[in-house]
Amino acid sequence: MCEANAYVLKGDSEELLMESVDLLEPLKNGEYRLVNIFGEQKTIKAKIKVMSLVNHRIVFEAQSY
Amino acid sequence: MCEANAYVLKGDSEELLMESVDLLEPLKNGEYRLVNIFGEQKTIKAKIKVMSLVNHRIVFEAQSY
Repeated sequence: MCEANAYVLKGDSEELLMESVDLLEPLKNGEYRLVNIFGEQKTIKAKIKVMSLVNHRIVFEAQSY
Repeated sequence: MCEANAYVLKGDSEELLMESVDLLEPLKNGEYRLVNIFGEQKTIKAKIKVMSLVNHRIVFEAQSY
């Protein structure tokens, strides 16, 4: 499977936000909706910093979540 | 490999922008930099509409590219 883990960058450290993310969808208000392969959902108000699909990583810079 | 294909939505149709995208990185000016597994790079001024990693799809709504 090709899902990725989503992390939030806080200072120098990365916090795991959600594992096995399948869907990522921007909402209207600067938030992103994440849905993982288990059907769990989260929203995060953040910017994407970088994604590497080969490394299964999505890194957000958080504003709040 | 878990790269995805990037598409640009134009009206009702999707145009393939880049195959086998690994890296996706927002730039400062509303553009995204895409790098595929072959080391090819493209930038696109667009918004992400939706991504499905399990389906290997990144869909942009284009402003220009």
